[in-house]
Amino acid sequence: MTLETKSTSRERLLEAAATLTYRDGVNIGVDALCKAAGVSKRSMYQLFESKDDLLAASLNERASAFVAGLLPSAADGRCPRERILHVFDQLESQAGAPDFLGCPYLSVQIELKDQSHSASQVAHRIKANLTAFFRTEAEQGGASDPDLLARQLILVFDGASARAGIGADTMTGLVAPTVVTLLDTAGVR
Amino acid sequence: MTLETKSTSRERLLEAAATLTYRDGVNIGVDALCKAAGVSKRSMYQLFESKDDLLAASLNERASAFVAGLLPSAADGRCPRERILHVFDQLESQAGAPDFLGCPYLSVQIELKDQSHSASQVAHRIKANLTAFFRTEAEQGGASDPDLLARQLILVFDGASARAGIGADTMTGLVAPTVVTLLDTAGVR
Repeated sequence: MTLETKSTSRERLLEAAATLTYRDGVNIGVDALCKAAGVSKRSMYQLFESKDDLLAASLNERASAFVAGLLPSAADGRCPRERILHVFDQLESQAGAPDFLGCPYLSVQIELKDQSHSASQVAHRIKANLTAFFRTEAEQGGASDPDLLARQLILVFDGASARAGIGADTMTGLVAPTVVTLLDTAGVR
Repeated sequence: MTLETKSTSRERLLEAAATLTYRDGVNIGVDALCKAAGVSKRSMYQLFESKDDLLAASLNERASAFVAGLLPSAADGRCPRERILHVFDQLESQAGAPDFLGCPYLSVQIELKDQSHSASQVAHRIKANLTAFFRTEAEQGGASDPDLLARQLILVFDGASARAGIGADTMTGLVAPTVVTLLDTAGVR
């Protein structure tokens, strides 16, 4: 096996784990993952210690795309209020996709029910980074209580994602006015 | 088997399904459910068509306790604002329990990823009833947009439950000020 083939198998396994876990849940079997990736179980276990490791690695691999799809670029010249609203615009747009099932990092933690699981820890860290972005923008925007505003914004992010993901609601006419109310109350103009 | 024994087996199965599904997820096996209930698989399949039916019935069975634990009594003399805040006081108190893993009706829908599943439909209906309670109180409290306020309140309910359930945050100092802000903005004094 050449290094190049090895890298391709790894990428296909990461892709299959991300896609199938999101669609079917964390209890997806190793056989199904290997079949979708077109990789033998033997090869999978040469690349990853366990299914848990593959799951954690797939969540981690997707983190940069998750961040790029939501966050504004580092210094885009917009004010903190606009930068925060940008995240929720992006989220609302993503939630319109027919295969949207909520935030993958929230779902995996709810499904695993084990905060010490390596995949839960990866998911927790990625969402903590999003909360930290809100915290920074809240502070730079002069929020009266930046910690509270950041906690409120990630609560709205997760609540709206979860409810849209299960088809209980959409984000239309809900997320934007809610975030605006929270920003206004915190004094982030 | 007498009717009395049958009823007891049924109750134990419903209890086991509710408890183990909440703790371990919807993929809990029939063997584990029957073992926890002290009921043979044969008896289980005499009482329930399938594990899916047992799960749906267990969610339905818990609905009245869920409602009683959260909602104020029908005419307690308090104003709509206080009646809405009562729900979140109760939620915050419940979330303090060491075995709190979020709202069981949200989790089951996220885990099943199938809105047509009988258990998803039961869960959806129970949460829609909670949203309807918020809607009624919002209207009676003179909310400027009762639909929006009800959607915001159930979003906060689910978002805060999910985040506390995965240990990403607590509800302390978060849920009450957020609900107050939403009530104030909607003009529910």
